Amino acid sequence: MNTAAGLDHIFRPRSIAVIGATSRPGSIGRELTHNLLSYDFKGQVFPVNPHARFIHSIKCHPSILDIPDPVDMAVIIVKKELVLPVVEACGQKGVGGVVVITAGFKEVGEEGAREEEELLALVQKYGMRMIGPNCFGVINTHPDVTMNATFSRTQPLPGKIGFMSQSGALGEAILAHAHRLGLGFSMFASVGNKADISGNALLNYWKDDPNTQIILLYLESFGDPETFTGIARQITRVKPIIAVKSGKTTAGARATISHTGALAGHDIGVDALFDQCGVLRVNSMEELFDVAEAFDHQPVPRGNRVAILTNAGGPGILATDAAAGLGLDVAALDPSTVAALKAHLPTAAATGNPVDMIASATGAEYRMALRALFDDPNVDSVICLFVPPIMIDEMAVAEAIVEARAQTDKTLLACFMGSQDAAGGADRLKKAGIPVYSFPEEMAKVLERMSQHRAWLNRPVRTAPKPERGITSVRDDLARLARSGQIQILGSEALNLLERCGIPTAPLVGGSGIAELQTAAEKMGYPVVLKLDSEGLAHKTEIGAVIVDIRNADELARQHQALLSLAAKHKLTGANVVLQPMVTGGVEMALGMVRDPQFGPLVMCGVGGVLVEVVRDIAFKLPPLSLDDAREMIDQLKGRKLLAGHRGAPPVDVEALVSALVRLSLLVTDFPLISELDINPFVVCPSGSTSRAIDARIVLAPAP
Amino acid sequence: MNTAAGLDHIFRPRSIAVIGATSRPGSIGRELTHNLLSYDFKGQVFPVNPHARFIHSIKCHPSILDIPDPVDMAVIIVKKELVLPVVEACGQKGVGGVVVITAGFKEVGEEGAREEEELLALVQKYGMRMIGPNCFGVINTHPDVTMNATFSRTQPLPGKIGFMSQSGALGEAILAHAHRLGLGFSMFASVGNKADISGNALLNYWKDDPNTQIILLYLESFGDPETFTGIARQITRVKPIIAVKSGKTTAGARATISHTGALAGHDIGVDALFDQCGVLRVNSMEELFDVAEAFDHQPVPRGNRVAILTNAGGPGILATDAAAGLGLDVAALDPSTVAALKAHLPTAAATGNPVDMIASATGAEYRMALRALFDDPNVDSVICLFVPPIMIDEMAVAEAIVEARAQTDKTLLACFMGSQDAAGGADRLKKAGIPVYSFPEEMAKVLERMSQHRAWLNRPVRTAPKPERGITSVRDDLARLARSGQIQILGSEALNLLERCGIPTAPLVGGSGIAELQTAAEKMGYPVVLKLDSEGLAHKTEIGAVIVDIRNADELARQHQALLSLAAKHKLTGANVVLQPMVTGGVEMALGMVRDPQFGPLVMCGVGGVLVEVVRDIAFKLPPLSLDDAREMIDQLKGRKLLAGHRGAPPVDVEALVSALVRLSLLVTDFPLISELDINPFVVCPSGSTSRAIDARIVLAPAP
Repeated sequence: MNTAAGLDHIFRPRSIAVIGATSRPGSIGRELTHNLLSYDFKGQVFPVNPHARFIHSIKCHPSILDIPDPVDMAVIIVKKELVLPVVEACGQKGVGGVVVITAGFKEVGEEGAREEEELLALVQKYGMRMIGPNCFGVINTHPDVTMNATFSRTQPLPGKIGFMSQSGALGEAILAHAHRLGLGFSMFASVGNKADISGNALLNYWKDDPNTQIILLYLESFGDPETFTGIARQITRVKPIIAVKSGKTTAGARATISHTGALAGHDIGVDALFDQCGVLRVNSMEELFDVAEAFDHQPVPRGNRVAILTNAGGPGILATDAAAGLGLDVAALDPSTVAALKAHLPTAAATGNPVDMIASATGAEYRMALRALFDDPNVDSVICLFVPPIMIDEMAVAEAIVEARAQTDKTLLACFMGSQDAAGGADRLKKAGIPVYSFPEEMAKVLERMSQHRAWLNRPVRTAPKPERGITSVRDDLARLARSGQIQILGSEALNLLERCGIPTAPLVGGSGIAELQTAAEKMGYPVVLKLDSEGLAHKTEIGAVIVDIRNADELARQHQALLSLAAKHKLTGANVVLQPMVTGGVEMALGMVRDPQFGPLVMCGVGGVLVEVVRDIAFKLPPLSLDDAREMIDQLKGRKLLAGHRGAPPVDVEALVSALVRLSLLVTDFPLISELDINPFVVCPSGSTSRAIDARIVLAPAP
Repeated sequence: MNTAAGLDHIFRPRSIAVIGATSRPGSIGRELTHNLLSYDFKGQVFPVNPHARFIHSIKCHPSILDIPDPVDMAVIIVKKELVLPVVEACGQKGVGGVVVITAGFKEVGEEGAREEEELLALVQKYGMRMIGPNCFGVINTHPDVTMNATFSRTQPLPGKIGFMSQSGALGEAILAHAHRLGLGFSMFASVGNKADISGNALLNYWKDDPNTQIILLYLESFGDPETFTGIARQITRVKPIIAVKSGKTTAGARATISHTGALAGHDIGVDALFDQCGVLRVNSMEELFDVAEAFDHQPVPRGNRVAILTNAGGPGILATDAAAGLGLDVAALDPSTVAALKAHLPTAAATGNPVDMIASATGAEYRMALRALFDDPNVDSVICLFVPPIMIDEMAVAEAIVEARAQTDKTLLACFMGSQDAAGGADRLKKAGIPVYSFPEEMAKVLERMSQHRAWLNRPVRTAPKPERGITSVRDDLARLARSGQIQILGSEALNLLERCGIPTAPLVGGSGIAELQTAAEKMGYPVVLKLDSEGLAHKTEIGAVIVDIRNADELARQHQALLSLAAKHKLTGANVVLQPMVTGGVEMALGMVRDPQFGPLVMCGVGGVLVEVVRDIAFKLPPLSLDDAREMIDQLKGRKLLAGHRGAPPVDVEALVSALVRLSLLVTDFPLISELDINPFVVCPSGSTSRAIDARIVLAPAP
């Protein structure tokens, strides 16, 4: 369930029963009880175990029903066979929420899945909420609650991060690593099998939690992508969401017929989904923590102009390379900044960007230079590097950085390379809320992610045009074809449907013989294109069934004959030879849609020909597309240069392409019967000429 | 200087004078003397300072000339003004080598550079060798030497890594980080300004040092790329060289005229150089250490088939994603391995690859599973993940991994996630020579680099054809044109030169009028191409001066007229309209060469058109090219798919392309007067037709 109702029973309980508590060392029941007590839970803890009288000096009840006081929440650690009766007892006791640590349900197979359904039914029967089964537990560090209901060996630091992990096994690793970095949590939840409380429910809960300012997700799958988008889109305007999504290469194969389908990688849906709701996707757990550290204490930079300050040339260059390589602007410093730096630094120092103060730089020089950089209107963020030279007081440098930072609202990331002393400068910076990294290159990556978040914050809310609820005749035609068992709609039939939905197409003209075709060609004007139009022929070009640039009647007759022979050779009975005006002087694009079983329709756009086929220079988005969404897809293509007028060609009418993409988005949203769609090529012409779809294929889902 | 002669004076001295030694705390002179003594240098140390009688309880001499015993090496830490007289004294004393820590020479400007020249002259006058000036010092951990002649605060561990750093400031960071990771050095050198001893001299020295088995380089520039290639190529067959090269984005602009020149990024020479001599380039300091750890203790995997073993699903998937994403083979396990795993693991375990033993996995299960994976003939390396569950004995798992490893010669990398305890399992593994990483994704990167090294080791030695010492007439023509001040050779003139050098070209036929052209076209056969051939016209297509696919005499006459008007419009006096047969049915390639001021000629290959222009799908190599080099360049292109026969087209004659590339390589090696060259397009045809250069441009260097 997605709703956050009742989650307070789990995250803000006044009393907790630990069912399966023990004092056996090295057991989950012991660790969890111990954590609740030693983390000083602000409420009552009731160990429940028929085989013990006391646990950690607290009276132990044989059953939850024996507890005289009311119980808000129960953590269940009993063996699997006992889970159902225990939950039944919780229901009878009037418990509000249960956290089921016990494993052995859906994750082990069909029988487990059936038992999980029974478990959920029981939970719902009593109006309870449930985290798990098969999870690591939950944490709320709020001073009114201070609950560590996990069996972690690491006590969490309080802070403003909400962390949701779909892997219980990663729980310990996450808490331990966060502790090492000094990252604090508001709440933590290992959601296990998500039988009742889903990731989306947690997002809904954290959306309104004032203590949770940053949300980190470790995801292995999506339950309900559409709901996720809806919630995440609201949250990311206020709180960054940073996610690792694993399982890129293990997703099952998607059965597709279309070109678009073949081009859509299995992971493309996740990227499209995150892109649409401003979730920052990182590539590894390490990057997740790197980025979280920065968001935890530093403001999001106002722009992507970065200044690099160093006392050692090499690391400065490494940081500069990494920043430029990731598309950040290595800021052009204001002349007044350069003048200030020159006035205070030795002549051997470099006062461009990177600013290299050389090894003699003291705390005072760091303070001065940081102030100058923070005051520079051309600088949004500062990367500050320090390689401790023997004659320099490292703590004085750290103090200077802390002081300078206190006077700015710009972003500061630091790197103290090779600083051995844990109690040294790096530690001083961390305590003051300045993220410290071990290597210069990491900081550039972090800033790039922060800039991505800034771009999302700056982006106006987009509204897609409303679907037109279909043109009745198109709907009828599609339904009729699907009922008749037809899977693909090709050639003139497909173009005709697109034309009726507002996507301009180049007409296909048939004829009973060459004379008729010649007359038609004369009328549309040479050059023309001649094609075989056949139901069974999906890949025309590959057998040579498209002949372009026919310039006169004689050539037309000759090629007509050639196509008839080709049809005979390939036994294409019922194939027509059709004529199409040749659309010249434009850029050929490939547009399309494939329906992902999990994420629904994905709209594609790419520059036709080798860019799509050889280098997969394509963009995907989830419809509905706004005009700006369509423009952004086009901007993501390397091939966009061709649209702007390449090597002397005139620029083409990009807005005609935008319009076609939005129409395509409406079409596939409106007609769920269409399971895949290719428009290839769609020729985008210079303004004045009409841009048109030249060929198309529509794949139908079997009729319901 | 590149030679290693005399380097023993510096790296294996029997006695060292520290000139500028002091006992002032926090000074370089104190730290360096202290390091020599506390690291237990196996020889005599003579502090030299006119203002002290004793330093660290050792008699201090006022000048090196006062030392009664012979002195092998002197470390110089005096202020800059005293460096020359001190070096003069060293020479008189008969010192073999000096390490000049003092800075303020070439790195501070012209005057410093002059002083550096004087310093070098002095060193050479006395037949000494010199490291520096402006450096961090040198280390040799060999038990017969145990010399730490740096001012580092970290004492190096002994080991088999030779580390050369071009940045002195990074010295401390490098030593401290290596210490944290437990990486040991055979030798370390901060080479500073490299006035005498260059990086290449050190490579030559380490080539023959049996204690140095792995070489790490931090480079900011290349002194002599050709020598580097020659030495590195020999070393990498025996010892891996791993390098960080900084300064990607800061290299000065290269002035170029050609298309090839514009396409060659400033960093392309470094990649081409490393590629040619088997040096592994890594992208960051962090990766340098990650990769070094693996080479330090583990064998290079025999192939790139990796097995992943885990006790937690999530991290297993993260490792699998990363491995597959980097092009490693996620091994298909042998059925006998799967059977062995099934027999010993619980039913909930996954026995495919990744092998997920689930959280209950004990040391015994790790031992069994690792043995099974190491015995599997389909597995070259194993990534072993462990997320410590509360009920599992971490040390037992670590012991099991250590035991299993002792019985294999396959590669093993491990990740103990969230292991808090420094004295725990991770530490146990490290002590046993198993690299331990913090996150699953890092290991995939490391294995990918190791596989790259394996591929280099497996690659037969390549021999490029010998240059033909030029065709005399071509040499004469080029010299004549250069003397006349001509910069570019275009059109028919350029094609003619290529043809004479063995690269087939499509003939250009001129004519005095349309009738003559029509006769010629009839003779070569329609379709034909008509072009403007003019000295001042380098970008024909952009003004529409190339008309392709002309199919008959009438069209020819019309287009001839159009080109004459175009020539008039663009005031191209002396332009000829020329005819060329249209080469159809092939794949258009772009070939070329640009001469880099540092790396010399770089040969380029790419698929013509949008792949080169829009996505820069290009490969560069340093000539001379062997046939295999040329094939490898083609293999590196995404567009190679087009050569194999794309969408029904016949495959083309790749060997004709290989031959053209090798000819091009010979041409530019043979004629240094050619500073840039474009062949665009070079049409590669199916076997049976001749592949040909259609257009070309040669840029000449000014005549000497």
